[in-house]
Amino acid sequence: MAEETELAANDLLEVLDAKDAARLDAFLWSLSPADRAWAVSRLDRERYEALMTLLPPEDAAGLLEELADEQARDILGAVLPITAGVVADEIPSNVRADILGGMDFKSTDEILRHMDPEEAEDVRDLIAYRPDTAGGLMITEYLAYTDGKTVGEIIQDMQDHGEEYADYDVQYAYITDSEGRLAGVLRMRDLLFTAKKRPASEVMIRNAVHLRDSQTLDQLTQFFDEYRFYGVPVLDAADRLVGVLRRSAVEEAAAERANRIFLKVSGIIGGEELRNMPLRIRFSRRLSFLSLNIVLNVIAAGVIAMKMDVLDQVIALAVFMPIISDMSGCSGNQAVAVSIRELALGLVKPRDFMRVFRKEFAVGVINGLALALLLGFVAFLWKGNPWLGLVAGAALGLNTVIAVCFGGLVPLILKGLKLDPALVSGPMLTTVTDMCGFFLVLTFAGAVVEKLV
Amino acid sequence: MAEETELAANDLLEVLDAKDAARLDAFLWSLSPADRAWAVSRLDRERYEALMTLLPPEDAAGLLEELADEQARDILGAVLPITAGVVADEIPSNVRADILGGMDFKSTDEILRHMDPEEAEDVRDLIAYRPDTAGGLMITEYLAYTDGKTVGEIIQDMQDHGEEYADYDVQYAYITDSEGRLAGVLRMRDLLFTAKKRPASEVMIRNAVHLRDSQTLDQLTQFFDEYRFYGVPVLDAADRLVGVLRRSAVEEAAAERANRIFLKVSGIIGGEELRNMPLRIRFSRRLSFLSLNIVLNVIAAGVIAMKMDVLDQVIALAVFMPIISDMSGCSGNQAVAVSIRELALGLVKPRDFMRVFRKEFAVGVINGLALALLLGFVAFLWKGNPWLGLVAGAALGLNTVIAVCFGGLVPLILKGLKLDPALVSGPMLTTVTDMCGFFLVLTFAGAVVEKLV
Repeated sequence: MAEETELAANDLLEVLDAKDAARLDAFLWSLSPADRAWAVSRLDRERYEALMTLLPPEDAAGLLEELADEQARDILGAVLPITAGVVADEIPSNVRADILGGMDFKSTDEILRHMDPEEAEDVRDLIAYRPDTAGGLMITEYLAYTDGKTVGEIIQDMQDHGEEYADYDVQYAYITDSEGRLAGVLRMRDLLFTAKKRPASEVMIRNAVHLRDSQTLDQLTQFFDEYRFYGVPVLDAADRLVGVLRRSAVEEAAAERANRIFLKVSGIIGGEELRNMPLRIRFSRRLSFLSLNIVLNVIAAGVIAMKMDVLDQVIALAVFMPIISDMSGCSGNQAVAVSIRELALGLVKPRDFMRVFRKEFAVGVINGLALALLLGFVAFLWKGNPWLGLVAGAALGLNTVIAVCFGGLVPLILKGLKLDPALVSGPMLTTVTDMCGFFLVLTFAGAVVEKLV
Repeated sequence: MAEETELAANDLLEVLDAKDAARLDAFLWSLSPADRAWAVSRLDRERYEALMTLLPPEDAAGLLEELADEQARDILGAVLPITAGVVADEIPSNVRADILGGMDFKSTDEILRHMDPEEAEDVRDLIAYRPDTAGGLMITEYLAYTDGKTVGEIIQDMQDHGEEYADYDVQYAYITDSEGRLAGVLRMRDLLFTAKKRPASEVMIRNAVHLRDSQTLDQLTQFFDEYRFYGVPVLDAADRLVGVLRRSAVEEAAAERANRIFLKVSGIIGGEELRNMPLRIRFSRRLSFLSLNIVLNVIAAGVIAMKMDVLDQVIALAVFMPIISDMSGCSGNQAVAVSIRELALGLVKPRDFMRVFRKEFAVGVINGLALALLLGFVAFLWKGNPWLGLVAGAALGLNTVIAVCFGGLVPLILKGLKLDPALVSGPMLTTVTDMCGFFLVLTFAGAVVEKLV
């Protein structure tokens, strides 16, 4: 398996350089989607043009659709605008809007000018929506018929355009009035049991469940949790049918959001980072987070600098300060993670301040006690001085309680201030707990300094 | 809104204590799913029995289905087994198996003995599958007909049992042979265009795409990325039809896995932690990770203890050690996150060692240089000693390169050893980078100690 995929990457290079379109197509689709993504990610940017022009446009579009958005953007940004335009014409509307909407304006504009004018208009409409809203997630490929048609006419139209509609993932057809406003929804299975000459309006579901194009991902997730629909019509403010939102698009967006949270908590700002992205983007996405952190770290270490006299007398404390700093960070981050998760599940709200405090306080006391005993014992063993054990243990124990309570609360506070908890909780937590930790250990030591020297 | 949900939690208490079943039902479903989950999470465990018995079983089941699995387990574990059994009968098969499969054996067994024997058998079958496999994720509510029926007979059966099948989320019907082996798949829309007296076997899709009950989540995600099916039949090793796997179940499982990764990286071991879970579970899930960490921290701090002579002469270094430790942790964790994400996307494999190393080395050098200049400058300003700036800056810069390279590689190494990168990468990283960081700063300082005092 390992060898095979290694060969795959080399084979891809070779086939591309030979400009052998038939072999390329056959070869690429013999790989699993994961191996395909992996092999493509190994290409240097100069070969993207060959990849996109040798494949038939619909296959090139299929390839981009299954890659991560960042990777697809990278490829479309590297090829000629005319190539990008031809391929983009074939990508399903919601994926295409995601990809093009995330590129810089100039690149997007150039690609749009090389697309089919109707498709380009469609992209412009979709990009105008905010990304994680019903408008931004919906597809514009759906079946709609103007009111007044019979069941037979609709079935006839379906049979006439069967091939075209095969891509449409059809579960419902929509009936609109002359202004484009949604009049009703037809289920495929309803067509099964109806005489062909009856007007569709007699069997369609009126007042059908629908979504608004401005509804947010939170609202959409809730909606699809509650209703078991496969796809739901999306209306604009004037009740016009503008698209269809599929359950899978909402679930994908929710999973992507979970991944963004993970990356942000880890300190990657500005979206997905992939290793085949340009170095400039990669280090700047990380450096912005690191710069913030080092400033906060220097501030926290200022507490040590202010209490150098104690440290000067009891140099052994220098061994325990990084331990206290790191362990409090660990304990606090666990509480941060639980709060971020519960905020996402809707199980806590910013107003639950006191409840979270009580819950975290209990955990903090138990774990603080356990860690204090452990570290205190190690410190006592090292120098044979029970006072050193007491100082180190008490500082860690008390600071664990502070870190756990603060860690549980800081995401709620940030959320209440409309800030992003995933991004800011970690740095805020470690700064506060570092300052408290250094302060506690040096203050406790200062109080019993004659027992420690 | 805030006030309303506060009222909701109080109202729920009041209605439950009044044992007013009609008001409870009306009240609960007037809330949004998120508010419902939130209000239920505010209840103490004594009130779960009232909640589960006052609601009609199908509504109680609907409520459990929309809660997080951990929360549903907590409720079923707190009520009488007979109550739990009656409610469990009504939960859809795949969700039910998830909930019951995660409880301790004794509780599950007692609930199963109070369930409808057929449903209980169904649970036992599903629980036997490993959780993130096709067998563990599939539903067992599907339409199957033995080979030999006509299209008309099938349509008749659908009309006769319309109400029962309404829950079935029907997009396909399945045709099996007399041994229960899958013979073909019927699309609803195919029934639309076929004369009623034709045998179904003439219109069904033979050799239909199917999955095996043992296929893993990775394989399933790939499969649904590639094929746009809504639901796919699942066969056992003897080709018997055992269930239907829906796209949404796979997407939900993938999202849950992303969340588990997030929690594990943050140091919560053993699954989801919710604040309404018992304190004992909550602190032990966190303490196991913390105990590991403190041992590693003490080992890392041993490097400082070994070089106390240098520290004793240049006490100012104590200020920089926590900064170097924390910053290297930050830089390294970013690389860890990118590798974990790329492993999940299939973009890197353990064999990509050298490639990841080269890529991370470049980022490490740039960010290391930036951070080194910053910290070096601060250190120089503080004491007016350029040598102190040089020592602090060089140690942080070099350690950043080490942390970034090691952070990028450690998930690949762990994955190659079949260990869980999400769980172990963080502690391994910080231990190694702490040791290197302390060693570097104290060694550099030792080399120029006469310039620093």
